[in-house]
Amino acid sequence: MPSELESAMESLIKVFHKYASKEGQKATLSRRELRELMESELSNFLMSQKDPAAVDKIMKDLDTNGDGQVDFEEFVSLVVGLSIACEQCYQMHMKKMAKQ
Amino acid sequence: MPSELESAMESLIKVFHKYASKEGQKATLSRRELRELMESELSNFLMSQKDPAAVDKIMKDLDTNGDGQVDFEEFVSLVVGLSIACEQCYQMHMKKMAKQ
Repeated sequence: MPSELESAMESLIKVFHKYASKEGQKATLSRRELRELMESELSNFLMSQKDPAAVDKIMKDLDTNGDGQVDFEEFVSLVVGLSIACEQCYQMHMKKMAKQ
Repeated sequence: MPSELESAMESLIKVFHKYASKEGQKATLSRRELRELMESELSNFLMSQKDPAAVDKIMKDLDTNGDGQVDFEEFVSLVVGLSIACEQCYQMHMKKMAKQ
C-alpha cells in the first residue's frame, strides 16, 4: 500500500491528467481546463479571490514558457505556492493554540 | 469535504509536521527526522537508491540555507522533484500503452 506521501504525489498527477486529457493537447492544461480544475478542486481558494480575472492571471503566472498551456511542472508550482501559504497559516494557528 | 487536490496538500503538511515535531525545532526536520520520514513515507524511492549516504546527500541538497534543518519550503522541493519524475514515467507509460 502506498504511504500517505506517495498517495499525495499520486493525487497531484491524477488530478492534473484528469483535466489535461479533456481536450486538445493531452498532457497540458488549456486555459479552459485550468479553469475547470480550479473550480472543481480549488473552489475554496477561488472563492477567496475577489477578482473575476483570477484564473486568467494565474494562467499567465503559471505559463512560464508562454505557450498558452500549463504543463505538469508549471501546475506543480501552483500547488507548491498554495501548500506553503497553507502551511504558514497552520503554523500561526498552532502558535495561537499553544499560547492559550 | 475537501477535494482530492486539497487532501493532497493537507497530506504534505500533515506528513511534514508528523516528523518535524518529533524532536528539537518543531517546525523543521533534523537530519534524523528526515531519515525517518524518508524511510517510512518514501521507502520505495529510498530502496531504489543504492548509495547508503543517499539521505545525507538529499539533506545537503534540500537544506538550501545551510542551517542543518529542512523547513517546509525545502521539503516541498523534494516532493516536487519526485512528483515530476513520477509524472514523466506516467507519461511514458501512457504513450507505450497507446502504441499497443
